[in-house]
Amino acid sequence: MVAHKQKVAIIGSGNWGSAIAKIAGFNTARHSDVFEPIVHMYVYEEIVDGRKLTSIINEDHVNTKYLPHAKLPENVVATPSPEEAARDATLLVFVLPHQFILNVCKSLKHALAPDAHAISMIKGVEVADKNISIFPDVIEKALGIPCAALSGANIANEVASGLFSETTVGYRPHQRALAEYYVKLFDTPKFRVGMIEDVAGVSLCGALKNIIAVGAGFVDGLGWGGNAKAAIMRIGLMEMRRFALEFFKDVRPETFTETSAGVADLITTCYGGRNRKCAEAFVKTGKPFNVLEAELLNGQKLQGTETTRDVYEFLQSRGKIEEYPLFKTIYDISFNGLDPKLLTERL
Amino acid sequence: MVAHKQKVAIIGSGNWGSAIAKIAGFNTARHSDVFEPIVHMYVYEEIVDGRKLTSIINEDHVNTKYLPHAKLPENVVATPSPEEAARDATLLVFVLPHQFILNVCKSLKHALAPDAHAISMIKGVEVADKNISIFPDVIEKALGIPCAALSGANIANEVASGLFSETTVGYRPHQRALAEYYVKLFDTPKFRVGMIEDVAGVSLCGALKNIIAVGAGFVDGLGWGGNAKAAIMRIGLMEMRRFALEFFKDVRPETFTETSAGVADLITTCYGGRNRKCAEAFVKTGKPFNVLEAELLNGQKLQGTETTRDVYEFLQSRGKIEEYPLFKTIYDISFNGLDPKLLTERL
Repeated sequence: MVAHKQKVAIIGSGNWGSAIAKIAGFNTARHSDVFEPIVHMYVYEEIVDGRKLTSIINEDHVNTKYLPHAKLPENVVATPSPEEAARDATLLVFVLPHQFILNVCKSLKHALAPDAHAISMIKGVEVADKNISIFPDVIEKALGIPCAALSGANIANEVASGLFSETTVGYRPHQRALAEYYVKLFDTPKFRVGMIEDVAGVSLCGALKNIIAVGAGFVDGLGWGGNAKAAIMRIGLMEMRRFALEFFKDVRPETFTETSAGVADLITTCYGGRNRKCAEAFVKTGKPFNVLEAELLNGQKLQGTETTRDVYEFLQSRGKIEEYPLFKTIYDISFNGLDPKLLTERL
Repeated sequence: MVAHKQKVAIIGSGNWGSAIAKIAGFNTARHSDVFEPIVHMYVYEEIVDGRKLTSIINEDHVNTKYLPHAKLPENVVATPSPEEAARDATLLVFVLPHQFILNVCKSLKHALAPDAHAISMIKGVEVADKNISIFPDVIEKALGIPCAALSGANIANEVASGLFSETTVGYRPHQRALAEYYVKLFDTPKFRVGMIEDVAGVSLCGALKNIIAVGAGFVDGLGWGGNAKAAIMRIGLMEMRRFALEFFKDVRPETFTETSAGVADLITTCYGGRNRKCAEAFVKTGKPFNVLEAELLNGQKLQGTETTRDVYEFLQSRGKIEEYPLFKTIYDISFNGLDPKLLTERL
C-alpha cells in the first residue's frame, strides 16, 4: 500500500508546535518503517539572547523562546524557510497562527511531494462575506491537498512534560488511511490519539470552545459558583454542536459530546486558559478586553473574543443570531456593554 | 384532567432537602392552581442549641443545622413524623440518605393519597446478590407508586443562595404528565428544570459521577494537570454511559452527554465536592479513605468510594469488571493498594 515512507514537515514552532514536534520526532524514530527519521520544522527566525532561534533549536535541541523546559529530539531539524521545511514532504502539520496561513501556503505550493497531505492544528474560523470556513478547508483550497484536523484537551506545556493527555484526529470521508498516519505520528502511551470521520466538527470544537470559555470566565468573575459554570458549559456545548450541524457538512454530533476535541477540551479551557482568565478580569475590573489583553497576556492574542466576534458577525449576516442566545449574550457583554449579570437571562 | 390539587411532602431535610424545600415552598405558593400551598417536610428530630430542629424551622424558618444561611418560606412546615408529613400527600419528594429509605417507606405506606407519586433525589445505587438497583425502583417497589428522579449540577448552598443552576428530571415512559408536575414544583428563573424520559439514566448519573470524581481527585493529588483531568472525566463519562446501557432498561445515552444530570454534574463534582477532595488527600497523604473521611468530612459520608465498591462488586459478580477499566482502576487504587500513578495504564 505505502509506496514510500512518509516525510514529515511541521509548519510552525510556537508553544504547541514545539510540543507536537517533540512527539513527532519521537514517533518517526520509533516507527522507522513508516516515516523518514528527520522531521523538518519551519521556525520563524528570531534572535533570542543574541542567537538565531533555528540555531538554538538545532544545536541545543530546545526552543528557548516558546517551550523552554522541554528537550526536543535531535531528529527535529529547524529551518527558517517554509519551502525548505516542506521540500518533498508528504505529511504536513500546520500549527501556526491563522493570519500567516495563506502566505505560507503560497510559498509551499511547489515544494510538496505529489501525494502530500496535511493535518491542521489551527484554532479559530475564517469569516468573510457571509461565509465561514475552517482552516483545514482553507489549506485544502490553497494547496490542493487533503487536510485533516487535530484538536483536544491539550495544554502544550503539560503535553511536553509527558503528562497524560488525549487528543482527536478528525478525518475526511474515505480518508481513514491517511488518519492512520496521523495516529501513528502522534500517539504515545501518554498522548492518546482518537480518530473520528469529522474534520469540521473537530476544527469547530477547537474554535467555538473559546467563546464558551469567555462565558465561563464571566461566571467566575461574577462569583456565581460551580453550578452556574457547569450550566454555561453544558448550554455552550449544545450551542456549539447546533452551530456546526447547521452550517457545516458531514458533522458528527458525537464529536462534541464524546471526544477529547469536544467535551474534554471544553472542560480544560473553561478551567484553565487565557480566555477564561481575561473574561474573569473583565467582570472584576470593568476594563475592556483590548486593555486586558495587553496587561495580562504578554503579547499573546485573545482568541475567544475574536472568535466571539467572528461567529456573531457570521450569524448576524445570516439572520440567525437570535437562535444562538449564549453566543449572542457573550458577544453583547464583551462588546456592547451588556451587564454581565444578565448572562443567563436569555437562556 | 387534574381532579384535585397536588399535596407536596418532602421526605428529608438535610442540606439539599432544605434547599429544595425552599424552592418547592416558593413554587407551591406561586402555582396555587396546581398545588396545595403548605409543603410538609419530614425532619429527623434533633436538639440544636437547646431547641427542637422542627421548632426552629417552624418558628424561625431556617434550618440552622443543615442550611443555616437560607430563609425557608413560611409555607414549609416541619414535622418529626414521616407519616404525618406524608398524610394524604400526592407528590412525595425523597431526599434523605439512602440507608433510611426502606424504613421510612414502611411507615409511609398507609398515609399516602391513592394517586400518590414520587420523585427521588437520592444518590447512589443498591447492590445485593448480583443485582443493582436505583433508588426510584426501590421506592416504587416499597410503596407501589411511580417514582421519577431528579439530579443535576446542584451544589445545595449555591441553589439556596439563588445562584443560577440547571437540573434534570428523569421520568418513566408514558409519564410525562407527572414529570410536568415536578417541573412546575421546582423550575424557577434561577433553577432551570429540564426533563428526559429516563429515570435510570438520571439516577445513575448522580451515583456514578462520584466514582469519576474520585479518579479526578487522584489526578489532582498527582499534580497531572488539566489535560489528564479532562481525559479522566471524558473516559469516565463514556464508562458511566456504557454501564447504564448494559445493565438498565430504557436508558437514553444523551442523558449522560447532554443533560445537567450528566455532563454538567460530572464537571461540578470533579472540580468541587468532597469525593474529589478526599481522593486528592489520599494521594498526597497516603492515608486510607476511612481515616480521611473522619478527618476531613466532619461526619459526612464519602459516597464516591462507597459507590466505587458497590459497582466493583456488582461487576465482579457478573464477570464484567475487565470491561470497565477506569472503574476497576479507581477501585484498585482506593482499596487494593494499586499505585495511583498507574491510573491511566489500563485505559
